[in-house]
Amino acid sequence: MLITRRFQFAAAHRYYDASRSPAENQALFGPCANPHGHGHNYLLDVAVRGTLDPHTGMIVNLKDLKAAVEERVLARYDHRHLNLDVDDFADTQPTSEALALKIWELLDGHIPGCRLARVTVHESDTLFAEYEGPDAWRA
Amino acid sequence: MLITRRFQFAAAHRYYDASRSPAENQALFGPCANPHGHGHNYLLDVAVRGTLDPHTGMIVNLKDLKAAVEERVLARYDHRHLNLDVDDFADTQPTSEALALKIWELLDGHIPGCRLARVTVHESDTLFAEYEGPDAWRA
Amino acid sequence: MLITRRFQFAAAHRYYDASRSPAENQALFGPCANPHGHGHNYLLDVAVRGTLDPHTGMIVNLKDLKAAVEERVLARYDHRHLNLDVDDFADTQPTSEALALKIWELLDGHIPGCRLARVTVHESDTLFAEYEGPDAWRA
Amino acid sequence: MLITRRFQFAAAHRYYDASRSPAENQALFGPCANPHGHGHNYLLDVAVRGTLDPHTGMIVNLKDLKAAVEERVLARYDHRHLNLDVDDFADTQPTSEALALKIWELLDGHIPGCRLARVTVHESDTLFAEYEGPDAWRA
Amino acid sequence: MLITRRFQFAAAHRYYDASRSPAENQALFGPCANPHGHGHNYLLDVAVRGTLDPHTGMIVNLKDLKAAVEERVLARYDHRHLNLDVDDFADTQPTSEALALKIWELLDGHIPGCRLARVTVHESDTLFAEYEGPDAWRA
Amino acid sequence: MLITRRFQFAAAHRYYDASRSPAENQALFGPCANPHGHGHNYLLDVAVRGTLDPHTGMIVNLKDLKAAVEERVLARYDHRHLNLDVDDFADTQPTSEALALKIWELLDGHIPGCRLARVTVHESDTLFAEYEGPDAWRA
Repeated sequence: MLITRRFQFAAAHRYYDASRSPAENQALFGPCANPHGHGHNYLLDVAVRGTLDPHTGMIVNLKDLKAAVEERVLARYDHRHLNLDVDDFADTQPTSEALALKIWELLDGHIPGCRLARVTVHESDTLFAEYEGPDAWRA
Repeated sequence: MLITRRFQFAAAHRYYDASRSPAENQALFGPCANPHGHGHNYLLDVAVRGTLDPHTGMIVNLKDLKAAVEERVLARYDHRHLNLDVDDFADTQPTSEALALKIWELLDGHIPGCRLARVTVHESDTLFAEYEGPDAWRA
Repeated sequence: MLITRRFQFAAAHRYYDASRSPAENQALFGPCANPHGHGHNYLLDVAVRGTLDPHTGMIVNLKDLKAAVEERVLARYDHRHLNLDVDDFADTQPTSEALALKIWELLDGHIPGCRLARVTVHESDTLFAEYEGPDAWRA
Repeated sequence: MLITRRFQFAAAHRYYDASRSPAENQALFGPCANPHGHGHNYLLDVAVRGTLDPHTGMIVNLKDLKAAVEERVLARYDHRHLNLDVDDFADTQPTSEALALKIWELLDGHIPGCRLARVTVHESDTLFAEYEGPDAWRA
Repeated sequence: MLITRRFQFAAAHRYYDASRSPAENQALFGPCANPHGHGHNYLLDVAVRGTLDPHTGMIVNLKDLKAAVEERVLARYDHRHLNLDVDDFADTQPTSEALALKIWELLDGHIPGCRLARVTVHESDTLFAEYEGPDAWRA
Repeated sequence: MLITRRFQFAAAHRYYDASRSPAENQALFGPCANPHGHGHNYLLDVAVRGTLDPHTGMIVNLKDLKAAVEERVLARYDHRHLNLDVDDFADTQPTSEALALKIWELLDGHIPGCRLARVTVHESDTLFAEYEGPDAWRA
C-alpha cells in the first residue's frame, strides 16, 4: 500500500559543464546553457509504503510527511537558484534526475513510521524523473 | 500489459476515532474531525492485467470493466456519506488508503477475463493511495 | 487588467427543497437529494481588476487577496457541510451558482486597493459557475 | 532511475473485426465500429531506465529520445488514420493496448545509451494502456 | 450569472479546400490535409446565463442542459468523421471555430429557461475557439 | 469569435524594488526577493478575434499566429532570466501582470488578418493575469 502526496516548488537552474567549452555546452544543453538560467514550477510526488493503522486509517500521518518534505526539501529548494543557492549539484547538473536522487537522500529515513517508496520530480507537464531507491527492483 | 480506466465519484466523509477524546481527534485529524463531515471528488483508477486478444485488440472488454465498477463501487459510494451510508469503514476511517483496500476487495475476481492489477484512489490533486493487492511485490 | 488567484476547499452538501415532497426532490435533484449529503473539492477562482503599480508590478498585493479569501471564505466553508455548518443557504440550495453569488457578497469591498471582478466556483472538472457582480455587462 | 518524456499525436481510428458480422461488431465495439472512424488526441509517455551520467546529470540525452520517438513513432502515426494509413494493425484493432505494444517494438533498442522501460498510451483522460516489455515483472 | 457544463466527444476530421490544388492544400493545411483524416478528443463547454431560482439554487436544470447537448450535438458529432458523416461543414472546414459557430446554432433557443451565453470548443490542450453569439459585445 | 492558442516558456525572475531597503523588499515580496531568483513554467494564452473565412474555416492562419508569438515573445523570454536578460522590466517587476501588458504591446498589430483580443499569462496553476488591451470594456 502506497500513499503519495504532491508538493510544489519554484526554482531557477542552468546546465553548464565546466570541463567542456562554451560551444560544447551550447551543443549539449541548448538554451539550458544560457548564462543566467531559467526556471520551472516543479511538482514533487513523494510516495511512502507501509501498513494501514486501523485506528487512523492511515499508513503515515500526513502532517509528519508534510513536515519532513517542507523542512528537508522545500526550505532548501523553493524560490532558489539551484546552481547558486545550494551546492548539492556542484559535481553534476540540476536536472530532474539529479533532483530525484538528491531528494531521495534528503528524505530516506526521515519520515516516521513508514518507508520511502518513490520520489517523482516533474519539471514540466512533459518531463518527469522517478526514483525508487538503490534497492528497488528496477533501480 | 495493463489497461487503466478512470472513474469519478463524489462523497462526504469524516475522520473520528471513538476510542479517543474529542480533543485528541481534533489534534490527530484537524478539520477532518469536524462533526458533519466534508467531501471530495474522488478519482478512481482501476488497472487490470491480461493478454491482448488479437481479434479485439483488448485485454478486457471495457464494458465489462465499467459494469463491474459501476455496480460494485460507484453504486455504493457515489453521492454518499462514507461514514453514514455504508458500514465499510466502521472499524477504521474512510481515508484514501482504506478506500483503495476496500475497493480492491470489492473488485478482485469480479472483472471477467483479466486480473485486477492496481487500484488508485485520488482524494484531491495532491493526494492519492495505490494498492496492488496482497501478493504484489511491493505490498 | 485582471489577476486571478485560485483557491481550494473541500465541503459536503445536499440539495433538498423542504416545500417539495421527498419524491419530488428525488425527481428534481436525483442522488444530490440523498439524506446525508456527498461532497466535492471546490476550486474557487477570484479575479480582481485594477491598475498596475509600477513599483511592485502588481494590481493587488497577493497577500491581501489571500488573507481576505482565507478569512472570509475558506474559514467559513472549508471542511464544512454547507447545509449543516452555515446558514448561508437556508433559503436556497448550496449549488455552485449560489456559492458564487454568496462568495461575491462575502468578498466585495474587502480586498484592499482593487475591485472584485469575477468569482468562479468549480464543483467538478465539468461544472462551474461564474459571477461578475450585479453591475456587469452580462449579469 | 527512470525519466519519462510525454509526446502527443492526433489520429483517427476504427474498430472492426472482419471475421464478425456488422451486427456483432456493433454489439462488441459500439460506436467505435462506425464506418469512417473517429479520433483522439493521444498522449504517449516514453520512460527509459539508466544510470545518471554525473557530467550531464542525465540518463539519456533528451534530444536522442525525442529524435527516436519523432522519427519512429510520430512520423508514422501523427495526423494519420490508424486503419487506413499504416498496416500495423491489420491483424488486430488499433486500441491503446495494441498501440502500446507496437510502439514498444518500434522504440526498443533505438534509444542510445539507455533501456526502454515503459510505454504508456493515453487515449483520453479516462483510459490508458501501459506496457513494460516482454520481460517485465508484471508483463 | 453563468453556469458552464463541459462535455466531450471524439471525432475525426480533415481540412481540404476543393477549390485549391493538392499542393496548395498541403501548403495551407499541412498534415491536416492528409487524405484519410486524423482526430481529436474535443472538449465542449456550454455556458448559459440566467437568474437563480431560489428554490432550486439553479439557473438551469442541468438535466435539461445535458439532454439538449446530447440530443442536438453529441449524437451528431461523437464518434463520427466530421467530413464524411455530417454535411455541416460542406462549404467550409471542420475547424474548432466552425464547430463553435455550428454548435451555437444547434443549441440556441433549445435550452429551456435560460439563454445560451458562450460555446467553447477545445480541439487540444493548446487550442480552443469561443463564440458568444452574433449579438455579443465582442462578436 | 475568438480563437486562443496556448504557448509555454520557462523563465527565471526576481522581485526587487531598488527604491526600498532589503528588509522592505523582503517584507513586500517574501522569498520572491531572494537574490538569485527562482523560476516558472509560464503558460501564455493568446486570443485573437476575427471573422471566419469560409474557405479555410479559420479566423487566423495558426502558422501566422505561431510565428508572431515565437519571434516576438518566446525568442525573447524562453529560457531567460527576466531581470538579467531583457530590460523590459527595468522600471517595474517581472510579474504576470507586467508580462501580460508587455506581451500585448509586443504582439498588438503583428498578427496578420485579425485583432489581438486577450493575453493571459499563467505563472502557476493557481495564478494568472489577463489583459484585453487599453480599449477593452473592462480594461
